[in-house]
Amino acid sequence: MIIDTTQGVTLAQGFLASGVSAGLKSSGKKDLALVVSQGPGNVQAAVFTTNRFPAAPVEWSMYATGRGGLRAVVLNSGGANACTGEQGAYDAQDMADKVATLIGCQHDEVAVCSTGLIGVHLPMGKVLSGIESAYDSLSPEGGSDAAHAIMTTDTVAKQACYTSDDGWVLGGMAKGAGMLAPGLATMLVVLTTDAKATSQLANSALRQATRFSFDRADSDGCMSTNDTVILMANGASGVIPDPDEFAQAVLEVCISLAKQLIADAEGAEHAITVTVREAYSEKDALEVARAISRSNLFKCAIAGNDPNWGRVLASVGTTQARFHPENVDVYFNGVGVFLDGAPGVPRDQVNLTDFDVHVEVVLHAGDQEATIWTNDLTHGYVSENADYPT
Amino acid sequence: MIIDTTQGVTLAQGFLASGVSAGLKSSGKKDLALVVSQGPGNVQAAVFTTNRFPAAPVEWSMYATGRGGLRAVVLNSGGANACTGEQGAYDAQDMADKVATLIGCQHDEVAVCSTGLIGVHLPMGKVLSGIESAYDSLSPEGGSDAAHAIMTTDTVAKQACYTSDDGWVLGGMAKGAGMLAPGLATMLVVLTTDAKATSQLANSALRQATRFSFDRADSDGCMSTNDTVILMANGASGVIPDPDEFAQAVLEVCISLAKQLIADAEGAEHAITVTVREAYSEKDALEVARAISRSNLFKCAIAGNDPNWGRVLASVGTTQARFHPENVDVYFNGVGVFLDGAPGVPRDQVNLTDFDVHVEVVLHAGDQEATIWTNDLTHGYVSENADYPT
Repeated sequence: MIIDTTQGVTLAQGFLASGVSAGLKSSGKKDLALVVSQGPGNVQAAVFTTNRFPAAPVEWSMYATGRGGLRAVVLNSGGANACTGEQGAYDAQDMADKVATLIGCQHDEVAVCSTGLIGVHLPMGKVLSGIESAYDSLSPEGGSDAAHAIMTTDTVAKQACYTSDDGWVLGGMAKGAGMLAPGLATMLVVLTTDAKATSQLANSALRQATRFSFDRADSDGCMSTNDTVILMANGASGVIPDPDEFAQAVLEVCISLAKQLIADAEGAEHAITVTVREAYSEKDALEVARAISRSNLFKCAIAGNDPNWGRVLASVGTTQARFHPENVDVYFNGVGVFLDGAPGVPRDQVNLTDFDVHVEVVLHAGDQEATIWTNDLTHGYVSENADYPT
Repeated sequence: MIIDTTQGVTLAQGFLASGVSAGLKSSGKKDLALVVSQGPGNVQAAVFTTNRFPAAPVEWSMYATGRGGLRAVVLNSGGANACTGEQGAYDAQDMADKVATLIGCQHDEVAVCSTGLIGVHLPMGKVLSGIESAYDSLSPEGGSDAAHAIMTTDTVAKQACYTSDDGWVLGGMAKGAGMLAPGLATMLVVLTTDAKATSQLANSALRQATRFSFDRADSDGCMSTNDTVILMANGASGVIPDPDEFAQAVLEVCISLAKQLIADAEGAEHAITVTVREAYSEKDALEVARAISRSNLFKCAIAGNDPNWGRVLASVGTTQARFHPENVDVYFNGVGVFLDGAPGVPRDQVNLTDFDVHVEVVLHAGDQEATIWTNDLTHGYVSENADYPT
């Protein structure tokens, strides 16, 4: 059962968190977060950006999470530590070392996540003092502070949780938008659970969940150098979860966080759900949904409350998916504006003034479907990315 | 020799053109153009959109130009006649029929091009009257009127020409931006020459030229349903062109028109040349250049005069091209901001206030290179595509 929450990563038993201001953001807002597991068992799973310029903290965390027994994650906003050469690698490791010294573990039991401007070295004095103060602030109610400390252009903190009737809890926090292919800005996600999950279950659940959640959120088609999703399971509840329920819980929490990311994407004035139905294959459905979601012309039209189905078809027409143009239907918020290859209901019958917009394309080529969540392209997006350097 | 011109399609001998107002544009501006060859010989070549929802006029023109002996092209703005079902096909043919009757030829000797909103039927009464008035206005100085009549969101007419010392001329007009993969809005191009070119030469020259000109202009990554490039050669000069010079002339005129399209792209405040050098293959160089050119984050940064090389690298990192991250260099206007995998010259040394911006990426993986011409993503783009329905 998914419930609204103002606490994400500290809802499960045996997790402490904090969020402090280390002085990395010129605004003076919180910019350094720490999440620590108190055990008893520590199992983790992680998924990282496939960008070929992975940030230094990503390379460190790949190493750390590949070894098992993750005890803590330290995260900072105000600097991505990406494309920063050798110095960047040393800095990421220094962050892990510092946390390891404070909580008394090995440095490869600490993952590191960073987000912010690419290509600038972190001010390590501030970062290391910030880690000390984050350690001092650790609390079983620190989830919300942590979620705030990782925000960059986010306007609200994103948290979600699942409570099992069996007595275990899964909670999480996220910032940014995008993963794998997509990426509005860096996406960082930390999920914690006190379920006694095996490493195998944590891995399979997380991989499946990201595939159908963050990987289907495509705000602006740009892939970050820093995207990271980490799931920590400490077994503190003593309950071995039903594997199907656990996988479903991870999926639902990830979907909730992914939708929160899209709804708060840079400049978003509409959250757009693009569903492609009756495709020959899921791959076809995804290709078509992604093509639509990446059309700047389409995304500008939605910003203008314009049900411009021509721009949808122009995108569909660039794909390799199986379909016959004369059989394709397009619906905007349930109104069939293009039916059987010809104009359908007049476009002035469509109302796009609500925040949520649903575009459906029916290919009549099979029984597969896929959905991508995206958002419109607005003046706000241009302002955030042109008018203010980030 | 490329020369500036205020006449495109009527510079070559034996071509007449006109541009009139048929009432298709609510502004009352010119919206219907006619280009007619007087022979003696008529050879043509054409390249069309690969969009799988080709507009009715594209399907008609594929048929017509596949038969040889093209005598005329009729073009309208104010309506794309795309995704308009069977009625759209009849309308496109009716336009060809009308021209054929007036100039006395077969309808399959007339190509048709349309541009404007997708999914709306053309007001055929106005179109057919407009064709009559365009026929009445045909003139050997009508090239400029024709170039103006095909404009949609263009702010200036685009024309270019080449004059051979051998006594033949090649001229052309264009509107919009984009072709094959790209497409800002529909791109329409008509080239005319009085050289006595064979069909084979016209075809090979046009295909090669579009590959290295319009196909490398990528304004917003959207492919139109209507893109069309037509080359008409009537042999009126009596001169058989040197094949290499002819191919080079077609290429140079196409490059000139492509650059004019990008410079006038919707909302453009910077024309951006993205060059990828020392790539393993031309395909690799193109993939990288295109990935950069399609990054909204990068394009917004340029709009903000921000030499944000991190967004360039994030795009490069999404490609399959051969390179080692630690060997890649990035230059903005000649300033090496990222060298050997680490930050180079400080970004404040880069001045992006000029209209033209040059981004170079050196992969150090081979000796191939490619260039893509694009433009920045601005408030003007969002306004044109969100605030005003098109």
